[in-house]
Amino acid sequence: MLTDFSTAVSMLRNADKILILTHRNPDGDTLGSGFALLRALRQLGKRARLLNADSINEKYSHLYEGLSEDDFEEEFIVSVDVAEKKLLGDLMEKYADKVDLSVDHHGTGKLFAKNTYCESESASACEILYEIIKALGVKIDKGIADCIYTGCSTDTGCFKYSNVTARTHRIAAELIEYGADHSKINEKMFDTKSINSIMLERMCYETLESFGDGKVAVITVTKEMLRKSGTDKSALDAIKPITRQIEGVEIGLTVKEEDNGAAGISIRTSENYDASAICAHFGGGGHIRAGGCEIKDTTENAKEKVIDYIINNVL
Amino acid sequence: MLTDFSTAVSMLRNADKILILTHRNPDGDTLGSGFALLRALRQLGKRARLLNADSINEKYSHLYEGLSEDDFEEEFIVSVDVAEKKLLGDLMEKYADKVDLSVDHHGTGKLFAKNTYCESESASACEILYEIIKALGVKIDKGIADCIYTGCSTDTGCFKYSNVTARTHRIAAELIEYGADHSKINEKMFDTKSINSIMLERMCYETLESFGDGKVAVITVTKEMLRKSGTDKSALDAIKPITRQIEGVEIGLTVKEEDNGAAGISIRTSENYDASAICAHFGGGGHIRAGGCEIKDTTENAKEKVIDYIINNVL
Repeated sequence: MLTDFSTAVSMLRNADKILILTHRNPDGDTLGSGFALLRALRQLGKRARLLNADSINEKYSHLYEGLSEDDFEEEFIVSVDVAEKKLLGDLMEKYADKVDLSVDHHGTGKLFAKNTYCESESASACEILYEIIKALGVKIDKGIADCIYTGCSTDTGCFKYSNVTARTHRIAAELIEYGADHSKINEKMFDTKSINSIMLERMCYETLESFGDGKVAVITVTKEMLRKSGTDKSALDAIKPITRQIEGVEIGLTVKEEDNGAAGISIRTSENYDASAICAHFGGGGHIRAGGCEIKDTTENAKEKVIDYIINNVL
Repeated sequence: MLTDFSTAVSMLRNADKILILTHRNPDGDTLGSGFALLRALRQLGKRARLLNADSINEKYSHLYEGLSEDDFEEEFIVSVDVAEKKLLGDLMEKYADKVDLSVDHHGTGKLFAKNTYCESESASACEILYEIIKALGVKIDKGIADCIYTGCSTDTGCFKYSNVTARTHRIAAELIEYGADHSKINEKMFDTKSINSIMLERMCYETLESFGDGKVAVITVTKEMLRKSGTDKSALDAIKPITRQIEGVEIGLTVKEEDNGAAGISIRTSENYDASAICAHFGGGGHIRAGGCEIKDTTENAKEKVIDYIINNVL
């Protein structure tokens, strides 16, 4: 069931031996939230540990710097930034029904925890964790500030997206005063590319096609391209926004050859078109400006189907 | 001479028929400052107009939306974000000695105006203009908020760089509350690339070379590449950061074939190296992490000279 801010804070204040769960393929917001909470709980003298379904990318190493491991039988389980139970990944089976408190900002309505505290207007889960940690009476040290800043920055494209509110900026201001290494974190998060991902990007540009008087742009990514460039599917995060960023493009598509032989379609739109509606036509979904679907066909055929649909029914 | 905040505000409060000057190749900060001040002065019932040495890129059209032209014999001249008189470009000869007030954040010490109000710790000139406009008793409307936000965002790489302070974020928070179209502005400023600039980027990646165990990366840009891609030198702003952003690269070089036959060198460094010191060795200068110099030689020879110097004296 849904709970309120003060109840969520009380539950954490009264808990001990706390297990913190993050979502699968962990990003800056779920990890920033998790490690900030871990640092805060330990500062209050509690035992706390964090568990991920998947390994943590090295670029997030500053989040757990200086933290020791701990092992104990948990008495309280809290999940951070986990919108629904399947996002617990490999941890779902063991923990999904045992989560005492879920702190989230997605507002999907797919509640799974015994108690959920959700602020769907919050740009990141870290914004909520920041308020909770302050309400717990914890002193915000540099470690906590770095964690919270990382989530605030990564979930907003460095304060670029429409989810940013005045509160987001006010929290960032306070975090800088608490010593957050803001520019160093941003450099690691946004301004560092591997040679391999650059190689993949170059190959993707070579596949760039344009339809509908330049309003639609498509990039195709094959398994062979990932192999040749030495990248994996995590490199696609940097590829998906490319098409929509081209001047004049209203609908940007990335068509990916999946391991199962199907075509994975990612769609990004300008404010004039609804990505989730297009994806829904093909059995997928998403947000207004970013959606996805899977089509059981070759990348060439899938691309043609989606382009045809867009040209005849959307533009 | 240098003046203080309240004197700068008083001068503007007492002035009328005000000419506002921006710097050459105008960017988001000088234009945001200029048009915010113009809007503020007109709101106070004063006559004001703005003059640029160079044309304004279409992407800044939101800054002057809804503003009417005006023409009058100026009684007071103010420059915004102009660090030294040569940056007035073609306006220098006529106006450099007549500027009553310069509002700036560069702190170069090359004063040219009768009075200069400078806050060198300010991330953008727009931050200073925001404080001045508030002190003038002007109501911050959406037009002013959009202008100030544009300068705050563009001069910090969307709040990414080390020049960002807590004040920068607090001002952004207030601007969002005053109605600034923050995400739309950021999309225009940061997430829109022309097909031509993408083509140039691809050609640049093809010239990428690596030296010093991958610590040094170099991109070479010829006049032919600009011609083929249909871009001009303004497209280089997007090229210069590329080399340094590659994982493991500490010193990134962009070598450009100039119209005069010389080689223009742009250097970006990690926090471990001083770009301005390297450039100074070749008669140039700049900041610690971004500098430039010109070498009167072919791009090939110039590149070799700089790489040799870096490998033997810097790494």
